[in-house]
Amino acid sequence: MPVANNELNTPPAVVLLSGGLDSATTLAIARDQGFACHAIAFDYGQRHRAELDASLRQAKALGALSHRVVHVDMNQFGGSALTDFSIEVPEAHSQAGIPSTYVPARNTVMLSLALALAETLNSRDIFLGINAVDYSGYPDCRPEYIAAFEHMANLATKAGVEGTRFRIHAPLIDMSKADIIRTGTGLGVDYSLTVSCYQASPDGKACGHCDSCALRAEGFAAAGIADPTHYVKG
Amino acid sequence: MPVANNELNTPPAVVLLSGGLDSATTLAIARDQGFACHAIAFDYGQRHRAELDASLRQAKALGALSHRVVHVDMNQFGGSALTDFSIEVPEAHSQAGIPSTYVPARNTVMLSLALALAETLNSRDIFLGINAVDYSGYPDCRPEYIAAFEHMANLATKAGVEGTRFRIHAPLIDMSKADIIRTGTGLGVDYSLTVSCYQASPDGKACGHCDSCALRAEGFAAAGIADPTHYVKG
Repeated sequence: MPVANNELNTPPAVVLLSGGLDSATTLAIARDQGFACHAIAFDYGQRHRAELDASLRQAKALGALSHRVVHVDMNQFGGSALTDFSIEVPEAHSQAGIPSTYVPARNTVMLSLALALAETLNSRDIFLGINAVDYSGYPDCRPEYIAAFEHMANLATKAGVEGTRFRIHAPLIDMSKADIIRTGTGLGVDYSLTVSCYQASPDGKACGHCDSCALRAEGFAAAGIADPTHYVKG
Repeated sequence: MPVANNELNTPPAVVLLSGGLDSATTLAIARDQGFACHAIAFDYGQRHRAELDASLRQAKALGALSHRVVHVDMNQFGGSALTDFSIEVPEAHSQAGIPSTYVPARNTVMLSLALALAETLNSRDIFLGINAVDYSGYPDCRPEYIAAFEHMANLATKAGVEGTRFRIHAPLIDMSKADIIRTGTGLGVDYSLTVSCYQASPDGKACGHCDSCALRAEGFAAAGIADPTHYVKG
């Protein structure tokens, strides 16, 4: 849906906007860098559907030109705690290595669809809020993955063949959660609108116990900024 | 849906099965190479939905272990004659360069979803029926694109990180349409079950006029094999 259309002299960018803290900050950074932003969110059968509502609220609050939800029924694949309801969501810090919340090829699927949208919109810039510090267990949150995707994208597309290169921007990749929160706060992000919890309630309240809740709470504490998160209890 | 499950000692592979001639041949080749095949088809809002019915018929006829249709609503993006109903499908041989039937990042989106399925099924082999000879205008039908996708896939996934590499197989990539038809015929493919037309009728009959119909008819003629295609007229 169109959200606003008053920016005509800025280059278009596609921003992956999940509804969480990181992608809201990424949208604010893209805006600050002078891009006219088109937000894209994914409904891939995740538990935390409250994020999709949060995504639209943020797109409006942060001045995106448009917001789309793309449905991709990856839940028929199984294999992750985020889409397979038979696998329990782990408590914070309960695992080493690649977490069970890892969704096979999720960032690749989302970036591919963002690439399709970007080519259609004549945009060459895609922003996503991945982070190699907090999510070191996810293979598709590493700089070498982003570089490989960018290389592939420029061979895959009409734009790449015609010489105008796509750029995949991951501005948070080396930032701590506290850095992200400080940066976003400086750019006017209202974090009370974001939902990070892996098992948020239908109205977007956070459980306070999962990995994602723990990282977020620690981030606000480290940044010295009051945590505006709405928790189920408290 | 499960189609058969009597092959337990063969490695699993994911095969992109569109319902057309090329991907049916690719499935037959993967079977012949000893893989237990899981077919995946995509409903991305294409005009030729008859292909999806054809895809399921071929999966059964060629002994796939399972068949899935993944819905991806790329039609909200526009930008291609195959998904945007306001753009006319071109007649055969009417264009140079990248055809208007090019769907932005289509192969990348489909391969990404196949990668997600493969990782979930503990498969490391993905087959797709792209062809660099007949579809030279499509950037995502070139060998260098496939190599770049494979490299990216092995950085994107748990499997890649853990050292078991994914392989993207494109066995038709250097074959002429006649070679493909001869190979598939030798492997028992029933081409009357396949639909190649860009604007097939709801019951799967071909227009006989579009690029895809022309390439297919020329292929049967060059192979010296009777064309079993069901055309709307004749």
